[in-house]
Amino acid sequence: MLENISSSADLKELKEDQLKDLCDEIRQELIRTVSENGGHLASNLGIVELTVAIHRVYNTPEDQVVFDVGHQSYVHKLITGRYRQFSTLRAYGGISGFPKRSESIYDCFETGHASTAISAALGLARARDMKKENHQVIAVVGDGALTGGMCYEALNDAGNSRTQLTVILNDNEMSIAPNVGALSSYLTNLRISAGWQSAKKKVRHLSGIPVIGKPLYTVIHRVKKFFKFILLRDKDLGFFETLGFQYFGPIDGHDLKSLEKTLEKARLCQAPCVIHVLTRKGYGYEQAEKRPEAFHGTPPFYIETGDRMNAPSIPSSGHRMANQLAEMARKDNRIVAITAAMPLGTGLDHFAESFPDRLFDVGIAEEHAATMAAGLAAGGMRPYFAVYNSFFQRCYDQMIHDVSMQHLPVVFLLDRSGIGGEDGQTHHGVFDFAALLPIPGMKVLAPCDADELCEMLIWTIQQDGPVAIRYAKDGRLIEQKKNKGISFSFGRWECFSEGKDAALFATGSMVRNALEAGNILRNEGLQVSVYNCSTVKPLDEEALRKEAGRKPIITIEEHMVTGGFGEFVTQRCREMKIKTPVDCIGIPDTFIQHGKHSRLLKDVGLDPEQMAERIRNTIRRITD
Amino acid sequence: MLENISSSADLKELKEDQLKDLCDEIRQELIRTVSENGGHLASNLGIVELTVAIHRVYNTPEDQVVFDVGHQSYVHKLITGRYRQFSTLRAYGGISGFPKRSESIYDCFETGHASTAISAALGLARARDMKKENHQVIAVVGDGALTGGMCYEALNDAGNSRTQLTVILNDNEMSIAPNVGALSSYLTNLRISAGWQSAKKKVRHLSGIPVIGKPLYTVIHRVKKFFKFILLRDKDLGFFETLGFQYFGPIDGHDLKSLEKTLEKARLCQAPCVIHVLTRKGYGYEQAEKRPEAFHGTPPFYIETGDRMNAPSIPSSGHRMANQLAEMARKDNRIVAITAAMPLGTGLDHFAESFPDRLFDVGIAEEHAATMAAGLAAGGMRPYFAVYNSFFQRCYDQMIHDVSMQHLPVVFLLDRSGIGGEDGQTHHGVFDFAALLPIPGMKVLAPCDADELCEMLIWTIQQDGPVAIRYAKDGRLIEQKKNKGISFSFGRWECFSEGKDAALFATGSMVRNALEAGNILRNEGLQVSVYNCSTVKPLDEEALRKEAGRKPIITIEEHMVTGGFGEFVTQRCREMKIKTPVDCIGIPDTFIQHGKHSRLLKDVGLDPEQMAERIRNTIRRITD
Repeated sequence: MLENISSSADLKELKEDQLKDLCDEIRQELIRTVSENGGHLASNLGIVELTVAIHRVYNTPEDQVVFDVGHQSYVHKLITGRYRQFSTLRAYGGISGFPKRSESIYDCFETGHASTAISAALGLARARDMKKENHQVIAVVGDGALTGGMCYEALNDAGNSRTQLTVILNDNEMSIAPNVGALSSYLTNLRISAGWQSAKKKVRHLSGIPVIGKPLYTVIHRVKKFFKFILLRDKDLGFFETLGFQYFGPIDGHDLKSLEKTLEKARLCQAPCVIHVLTRKGYGYEQAEKRPEAFHGTPPFYIETGDRMNAPSIPSSGHRMANQLAEMARKDNRIVAITAAMPLGTGLDHFAESFPDRLFDVGIAEEHAATMAAGLAAGGMRPYFAVYNSFFQRCYDQMIHDVSMQHLPVVFLLDRSGIGGEDGQTHHGVFDFAALLPIPGMKVLAPCDADELCEMLIWTIQQDGPVAIRYAKDGRLIEQKKNKGISFSFGRWECFSEGKDAALFATGSMVRNALEAGNILRNEGLQVSVYNCSTVKPLDEEALRKEAGRKPIITIEEHMVTGGFGEFVTQRCREMKIKTPVDCIGIPDTFIQHGKHSRLLKDVGLDPEQMAERIRNTIRRITD
Repeated sequence: MLENISSSADLKELKEDQLKDLCDEIRQELIRTVSENGGHLASNLGIVELTVAIHRVYNTPEDQVVFDVGHQSYVHKLITGRYRQFSTLRAYGGISGFPKRSESIYDCFETGHASTAISAALGLARARDMKKENHQVIAVVGDGALTGGMCYEALNDAGNSRTQLTVILNDNEMSIAPNVGALSSYLTNLRISAGWQSAKKKVRHLSGIPVIGKPLYTVIHRVKKFFKFILLRDKDLGFFETLGFQYFGPIDGHDLKSLEKTLEKARLCQAPCVIHVLTRKGYGYEQAEKRPEAFHGTPPFYIETGDRMNAPSIPSSGHRMANQLAEMARKDNRIVAITAAMPLGTGLDHFAESFPDRLFDVGIAEEHAATMAAGLAAGGMRPYFAVYNSFFQRCYDQMIHDVSMQHLPVVFLLDRSGIGGEDGQTHHGVFDFAALLPIPGMKVLAPCDADELCEMLIWTIQQDGPVAIRYAKDGRLIEQKKNKGISFSFGRWECFSEGKDAALFATGSMVRNALEAGNILRNEGLQVSVYNCSTVKPLDEEALRKEAGRKPIITIEEHMVTGGFGEFVTQRCREMKIKTPVDCIGIPDTFIQHGKHSRLLKDVGLDPEQMAERIRNTIRRITD
């Protein structure tokens, strides 16, 4: 059936009894494709009926739907003309795992990081109003994303705007087993409470007519292992001049009929409104329903068992980090860990095994996390904030303003640094050096492997100011490091391989590739030194001075060239009045799309082969 | 009396009848000093009694007080040992206008940007708990700061934490004339409403004993010209396992006796609580009460009339920008402006004079502002977001993720760029190039004066992608530009002064200083070219190539050297295989304190005299 569906209009033609089959077919397609390509499964299985209902009730693409985070947009893609390309999901050159305006006019706004959709939708709604158009704007937001402060800022502004804007709250907290009871009894309470009854009446009464200055329903959601939901009506406060949000729900998100009924009602509402939809993560696939967290983002897996194909044989960097941190925490009571809703992704679940009370999960709230860490440090603790590199962009100001200006010993552990892979451009962590290096007093490190990451952690505890460590997910080790018995020494760049023709100053993940490039060049008769520049700020001036005096220097990093390690080396060389690098190898001035990490490295010339060629050409050009 | 007060203990010894005199003396001191040095007056006048009450009731400095934003900490400074230095307020080498840990142990956490205090206080409270100490932690937060999403993230986490944390909500909205009526009738409503009565009873009943898992009061505040306040009790929802915030108030913030009484009560509460205090901005000084906005941050003024000394004779850059934007908006319906609670500071009040409906003030919510702008742009509008450079750090991720990845035509107008002056380190805008330049597709501009800023604005309307323009507050013009009849031409660096010995590539505010340095050098027989590098990204490759071939190049900028314009020029020269700059002049790797802008420029060597000397030395070194 999916073959014949490529628009809102196609969906509307389906009879009621065909819809169940369609939803089944969508689920099969989701499970098949994600089991092969990897991706986000549980959230998409949970949103099948809701997505179908949205496209049946609203006139998409004129009506605009913004998906918060966007990893739950697979169903949307399947029914808006991308069924045939769906097997290319997340593959290089294939369709993205997130909304993309270049893919379809049904994707009106791109997302990737959490909590942006209400802001974006409000912008779209205001643009509509000013152009005197009258389509609808809908933001689909998960309950988790509502822990982000941006959502609050946007609700605040939107509630004030009096404009049509529908927020669909996709509440899948019910999927987490221990909360089902609490939720259902809560909902029972909600339904029988006076406020709820009168709110329901009010909604019924008002639906269909624009309301100004009347009832204010403010919906705020609070998630932290337990479920908290607040429905508010300021019925007695006549002086409010604005509209707040009208509230519809809660609705069973797997009951298409009642979903459509409620959406139809909400569609008539010209004021900001919230539709509260209860869904179950992983719905329709037993393995995912049982383990929704494991099937949030998953690598390829066997459909029958749910077991992962090619399970990694070695622990990730994050896992190693967490174990090391736990070991240190045993001896040092000051050590605490912080995560912004990513205990699993960052590996900190392993820390929590030993120290559940010393891990603070603050929700999707990186800003608060960084400043709270500053408070902990000012109070004498040693906070370690583990966060994905690209989400770290959220606490840029807090890192400068709250941590660094007070020179507080907060350690930022930037996981998933460098090019990220299949999740694509929103998830690459390639802007951090540019953000970190200009900050006075900030020490910046990039280990070449997971062993060195652990050694760095041990070193951090002696620091009295901020430290940032960027590392890749990949926990593989570099043989040369082990073989030479070298361990991390702050401020010192170790030479892993000696050669007279050039000095390669490589940092982090690129040490491995530089060594491989060095091997290729060796076979061609060119000898290059390869340094592990694991301390990025401050630089190893001794190594710089030594090498600059006798060979051309080339820097290599998995980061934008602009604002990166290479420019930093250059400036320091200029200040030291020694020769500056002849080439800085890194990511050129372009956003990188999605695909396998190794493939993307090739796109930007960071694979060992292209690296070797570029180095060879540079050496030739100089010696000519 | 103030002479003899330097601690919490001194204050406690005062008799009740002495306190009024003390408060009067504090007000006089505030008015006198700020009238001479400039600074934040209205907010400090409003918080006199509250600050005195805090230090009398709590055992500071053991009990820790974090002031949100921090510009209202003058009273705190006056009564915690800094009375004698108070005349040096905000002056170079004097005491800061914000809390500073280096000044006093009473300053436990530094602030400057809004909405950080609850996060920081929660960190301090958690540190206390883990160290098994039992002092109290208090965050003093204005109602305006509560529009920031960080506050919501922190309240969310804190409400969950079950730990002692007192948030004092300093609600001075009542000072804004049109709202007094609304507020008082609102409060009347609040008091007579059932919820309020029962909440009051509950509070009375509970005060003094620690409460676990019992009533949840969630306090949310919403400010947007009008006043909105929501008091919530989930009395019927027994399944909540956490504590929320206990609520005390509202209290008259100028009635010391009732303030102390309520603080005493709250002090016994071991759970997170909110004390709602109503204050009046400018209280006790007629001029400031009448015009609280003008006396928020003020230059030196005449006490009797409130008139400003040395009123600027020419409009600021922001004023010029707003007029230009309004002129463009007359012809182009797509143009809209956005501010994050700074319509006056950014000059956008002048835009609003003509187009009140096309200025969106979103509250202190830079994150939302940037993404909402992206939504507006995706909807076909042309949004201009004017924001202070240092607050722009708050929307770093949104600028990358929501605006630039979709290549949306959002224009960021970064006011107060460069070193800021008396407000000190939290307000200098010196990290923006490093943040902006690595972003693919982002065009970065820096006008040499306010005329060029206006010319750039006209150019922006033809763009289909993001643009950032950084400019100083100072609206002065550069004579050479006018005299030569040169106007902004995108991507082209104009030579304002020709010379054979070196080429100075200066950008933004430093064009003026480079020209002056050039004059100094000319008197010594050295001829330098001075370029106005107003397009920073992309660089003018033609000018670079032309000059690199025949003279040493020196770059000059009012920005950190690291990640700045100079490094960017260097990297491009390297890629073009032409000679790289021999020197990059900018701000060295240190945080800059407070003082007059001209004095601070000297500290970092950016005044014309030191600049000339450095250039002379460089040219000599090279020609030797």
